[in-house]
Amino acid sequence: MQVSGLWPPAATPFDSDLRVDAPALLAHCRALLDAGASGLAPLGTTSEANSLTLSERAGVLDALLEGGIAPGQLMPGTGACALGDAIDLSGRAVAAGCAGVLLLPPFFYKGVPDDGLHDYVSRVIGGVADDRLRVYLYHIPQMAGAGWSLPLIERLLSDFPGTVVGLKDSSGDWDNTRSIIEAFPGFAVFPASEAHLSDAIPLGAAGCISATANVNAAGIAALIETLRNGEDATALQAEATRQRGIVTSGPLIPGIKAVLAERSGAPGWARVRPPLVPMTVTEGRQLASRLTPEMAST
Amino acid sequence: MQVSGLWPPAATPFDSDLRVDAPALLAHCRALLDAGASGLAPLGTTSEANSLTLSERAGVLDALLEGGIAPGQLMPGTGACALGDAIDLSGRAVAAGCAGVLLLPPFFYKGVPDDGLHDYVSRVIGGVADDRLRVYLYHIPQMAGAGWSLPLIERLLSDFPGTVVGLKDSSGDWDNTRSIIEAFPGFAVFPASEAHLSDAIPLGAAGCISATANVNAAGIAALIETLRNGEDATALQAEATRQRGIVTSGPLIPGIKAVLAERSGAPGWARVRPPLVPMTVTEGRQLASRLTPEMAST
Repeated sequence: MQVSGLWPPAATPFDSDLRVDAPALLAHCRALLDAGASGLAPLGTTSEANSLTLSERAGVLDALLEGGIAPGQLMPGTGACALGDAIDLSGRAVAAGCAGVLLLPPFFYKGVPDDGLHDYVSRVIGGVADDRLRVYLYHIPQMAGAGWSLPLIERLLSDFPGTVVGLKDSSGDWDNTRSIIEAFPGFAVFPASEAHLSDAIPLGAAGCISATANVNAAGIAALIETLRNGEDATALQAEATRQRGIVTSGPLIPGIKAVLAERSGAPGWARVRPPLVPMTVTEGRQLASRLTPEMAST
Repeated sequence: MQVSGLWPPAATPFDSDLRVDAPALLAHCRALLDAGASGLAPLGTTSEANSLTLSERAGVLDALLEGGIAPGQLMPGTGACALGDAIDLSGRAVAAGCAGVLLLPPFFYKGVPDDGLHDYVSRVIGGVADDRLRVYLYHIPQMAGAGWSLPLIERLLSDFPGTVVGLKDSSGDWDNTRSIIEAFPGFAVFPASEAHLSDAIPLGAAGCISATANVNAAGIAALIETLRNGEDATALQAEATRQRGIVTSGPLIPGIKAVLAERSGAPGWARVRPPLVPMTVTEGRQLASRLTPEMAST
């Protein structure tokens, strides 16, 4: 299965005890697919995956699969500071037939050498020990304090051909995204921002894994589709970029969840786990009101 | 029990499969106590705790307790990105009678508000729900990307008196350490560096939790003891600082473990988990040779 198009990193709703609200998550994921997403990248940064225990993360994956989401439409985040956790979760994803895993580097130590990150990937692949594993590297250095450099990507592609197959670039550095797309033809690169898709898709980007897709899946999906068809996407790009600007004008994850709360009529959607702090109902209402009614309702 | 003096953050040895080598860890911990440490702060940064799964961390605690280390001499690191993990491990430590827990803030998200960190501490304390819990805040912003500000410490002391009782300052910023010691009399502050103990101990610091205590426990313990007795510690301070300079001249954790490998005659001690990279035997031998033979042999 070709992994391309829009794969939203689905936000994770919590109940009043801050437990994962699986039915609400499933409904959100279905709405994202209905709005035009090609697949889902749950358990990422926007999903507060690192604020979930290993068993909670496994529970999210199970809930989506049991809820009828096709495994081929899932690319869960499985990276962790502890090798054992990354192997466990990646193994579960592969066993379930997921399209791939989005692998965050270990993110506690800073300034770690590429050799250490190579060793980590090597041990995750060796630990999973399943030819069906497809690793998408998750590059978000401003959070992880570690990332996937071009020389390291080159080594990984050389050492694990057919297994390390793509990358999500959340660096916010379009020059970095472009360099990776240009350097590695056939490597599936997903910018985390829709703001540069008009440049990225024609250059060969596979698609987009954007936090703001949680509240603008239809707009971003239409943008990608139009660009792929070689049609004029000027207006769609401008509108997607404008929406993104509104959503990213405040705390990103609380803002996205507050908008989902306002739109769904379920105030609980606004909950976040510490260390994040939720937006107030008023803040969420104001944020939602600034987004156009044409946006996909989730 | 008074928590003060030297509490080394014991390094964690691994076997050839990178599993925790519990017998070697226990021997190392006993040697640190024999060398003059008042207690131990296992499962911290130097211990590569975040590179261990939750069950591996619990296993380390169990191994130390079953090996006969007194719980009153243990202050394990129990912080985690996931609230459930922090509650689980803190609860185990309290149930075992540990002197306290060293609580890292959630460390994936950056630039998080103090309100979110306060909520985290509040939920950990509420989740453990045991009056015996003693929380020592672990401040290492250069790794965690989040930390305990003075206003936040003040709020926590006010909201959780008798439970939030101390702090380890690994910021490397002596001005910050001094400010905390001066602002909160009776709050047990442990600088993570022995380099400023001649200032810190007379000012009221409780002791020291230093990575380099893994290879210089006797020297640092003697320095603390001398300072507490109000005696001249000029020579001891200079020597401890000099040793620290040697050990911190390269990668800290690989260096410490390489020295332990060289001294113990067990080359396996040099192993680290990714993303860290071990020193070579030659590098470890050179590093060890620069340390004085007067140092405590572990």
